[in-house]
Amino acid sequence: MNSTQSKALGRLKKVASEADKSPMREMYKRLESGADILSLAFGEANFAPPAELLQAAEKALRGDKNLYTSTAGIPPIRRAIAGFAKKWWKADVDPDANILMTVGGMEAIFLAAQVVVEKGDKVLLPDPGWGVMRTVMQRQGAVVDFYPLVEQDSYIIDPEAIIDRMDEKTKLVVVNTPSNPTGAVLSQEGFAALLEAAAKRGIFILSDEVYHNYVYDGSHVSGLSFDALDNLIFINSFSKTFAVTGWRLGYAVAHPQIIRQMSIVKESISLCSFSIGQWALADFLPISETYLVNAQKLCHDNMLKMVAWLQAIPGVECTPPSGGFYVFPDLSRIEPSCQKLFMLALDGGVAIVPGDFFGSQGQGRVRLGFATDYESMSKALDRLEAVLA
Amino acid sequence: MNSTQSKALGRLKKVASEADKSPMREMYKRLESGADILSLAFGEANFAPPAELLQAAEKALRGDKNLYTSTAGIPPIRRAIAGFAKKWWKADVDPDANILMTVGGMEAIFLAAQVVVEKGDKVLLPDPGWGVMRTVMQRQGAVVDFYPLVEQDSYIIDPEAIIDRMDEKTKLVVVNTPSNPTGAVLSQEGFAALLEAAAKRGIFILSDEVYHNYVYDGSHVSGLSFDALDNLIFINSFSKTFAVTGWRLGYAVAHPQIIRQMSIVKESISLCSFSIGQWALADFLPISETYLVNAQKLCHDNMLKMVAWLQAIPGVECTPPSGGFYVFPDLSRIEPSCQKLFMLALDGGVAIVPGDFFGSQGQGRVRLGFATDYESMSKALDRLEAVLA
Repeated sequence: MNSTQSKALGRLKKVASEADKSPMREMYKRLESGADILSLAFGEANFAPPAELLQAAEKALRGDKNLYTSTAGIPPIRRAIAGFAKKWWKADVDPDANILMTVGGMEAIFLAAQVVVEKGDKVLLPDPGWGVMRTVMQRQGAVVDFYPLVEQDSYIIDPEAIIDRMDEKTKLVVVNTPSNPTGAVLSQEGFAALLEAAAKRGIFILSDEVYHNYVYDGSHVSGLSFDALDNLIFINSFSKTFAVTGWRLGYAVAHPQIIRQMSIVKESISLCSFSIGQWALADFLPISETYLVNAQKLCHDNMLKMVAWLQAIPGVECTPPSGGFYVFPDLSRIEPSCQKLFMLALDGGVAIVPGDFFGSQGQGRVRLGFATDYESMSKALDRLEAVLA
Repeated sequence: MNSTQSKALGRLKKVASEADKSPMREMYKRLESGADILSLAFGEANFAPPAELLQAAEKALRGDKNLYTSTAGIPPIRRAIAGFAKKWWKADVDPDANILMTVGGMEAIFLAAQVVVEKGDKVLLPDPGWGVMRTVMQRQGAVVDFYPLVEQDSYIIDPEAIIDRMDEKTKLVVVNTPSNPTGAVLSQEGFAALLEAAAKRGIFILSDEVYHNYVYDGSHVSGLSFDALDNLIFINSFSKTFAVTGWRLGYAVAHPQIIRQMSIVKESISLCSFSIGQWALADFLPISETYLVNAQKLCHDNMLKMVAWLQAIPGVECTPPSGGFYVFPDLSRIEPSCQKLFMLALDGGVAIVPGDFFGSQGQGRVRLGFATDYESMSKALDRLEAVLA
């Protein structure tokens, strides 16, 4: 088996090798081999999920909720989401028409790209920004262009930098607020201006708000609060919010036409989303406020400590993020090559994500996550400090 | 909101409307509205999941297994699958190179199509066969051709009917053994002949074996037992086997080159598969034999009873399936239109799947599932009998 190159294998399609660069594979390989590695690399909350959520999941597990759901998702979770959107973002969302449950925020993004983006369409992405977004859009045949996130006292999303790049070919703009990896957020005025400019030109805004609970500077401004579903596709996830990334549960909120199209595509990819998680979150969402507030506070405290720690290391420049799970310090004065930084850190027993995974502006930077307990974070920072010394 | 047609919506892509025909939407709508409907339509096991599996899931839920896994899946589940393949099918599978965990068997099929099928490639599918398979292949730009499953004393898969249709453009042949909806299986000799013919011509065989535990006529012949991973892609799922379709957990076994390509695509669709399910099944698979044997026996008994019941209704013709979860009776002497049969049944309080969802040979037929407890099945059959009278 796995022997010579067969005739069939010779005919195998070449999948774009862009994604082959993902640094996470080497990290997982070492972690799974049992190597002593502390991680600042994961894109998730490394604290405990809400106890009530786990209880609700057990109840569903024991209560015959292990079978298929409809592709859209069970009505109770869609109603709970509509309630959540009303409470937190003053948004009016119709649970029957505007919501599709997905396999994490990731599938929601993939499905949105499938129904919106056609070959040759221009898609605007943030730089720095989450690397996988580019892969998804390029697989759809999009022409990808980047708008810069600007580092001032913190990174910010400048709507003018986006609007300036809109042209007739532009079909979709991806906004990630708060941003991975920079923590940049879009302001109330900025979001309004962006939506108006996009509507005028017939451009969709895909607003990826999976870090919505983690804003350190004012409160989260959601695209949903603008009553603009005619050209807004809102992406969210429970994974980051409630520390259950392994459940693979997220959702999209969009115009009924878009939701319907996304559902049709989903039927031949994942069919439906994780049943237990839907039932558990339908119970838990309405009582989630305490957890959300505490998780935000934990991350805010950790962020301040991590920034202070990094700023004290000679050669490191680090601004405090306005939101999200990460800092994105500039280490170029120590070592300009991201890949070298990544391997140095891994060999020093700490996993980080190299900045160039997030685009050209990530050169000489690394992404470090602080959504964990302070003790784990500080142990890992000790190691990183030793590596950088 | 959801008001007038915006400029952006006017630019929305048209997704192929083929899948719009899916009859399941109307069924789910009625079920979710609380209508009194008994179902013979679900493509899943409506009996209880293994108690030990639920216990293992609770342990994982409580044991900090709620976060991302690697895209391939955790090593323990891949090792458990290799052990399972060795025990049941005498297959040698390398857990590190040959296995990818997926979001149900569905995602495995989607990913396989993504890496194998290019625009214009010919793909051979069974007729009758699962309707979604055609949608997946057509979205990839495949030219789909069908080979007939033949009804004799039972439906069978005739390898010659497949080999006859292979030509230079053929890139992929889908085999579903046991088959949905006919229960047809591929014999030992038939599988060997098919694999040999395919290898010679550089054609991949995608073997969808999600009903492997449910064979009523001899024992299951798996593609994996032929040591032919140079041109075989094996698809399986835990959903049907252990009555946990809502967990969305399946896997592919294939050549390392294919698994690697599928993983890369998966990274930008679902990132990883359901963590809890992976841990729970890693524990449970090695001790699953008793459950598997009992579930097979339950389905075998139900199948015999359902076939006898249907054969006693005037105008109904029903052969016993060799495997799987379904019978696929011919009701054309009562009502030749599948859609009418579907709506008649639904109005009579019983959900069935119309035969034309499975292709041209399904006209005048319906799919009825018997993977449930006998009492539920007989109540639904009572209603169906009243509808057909």
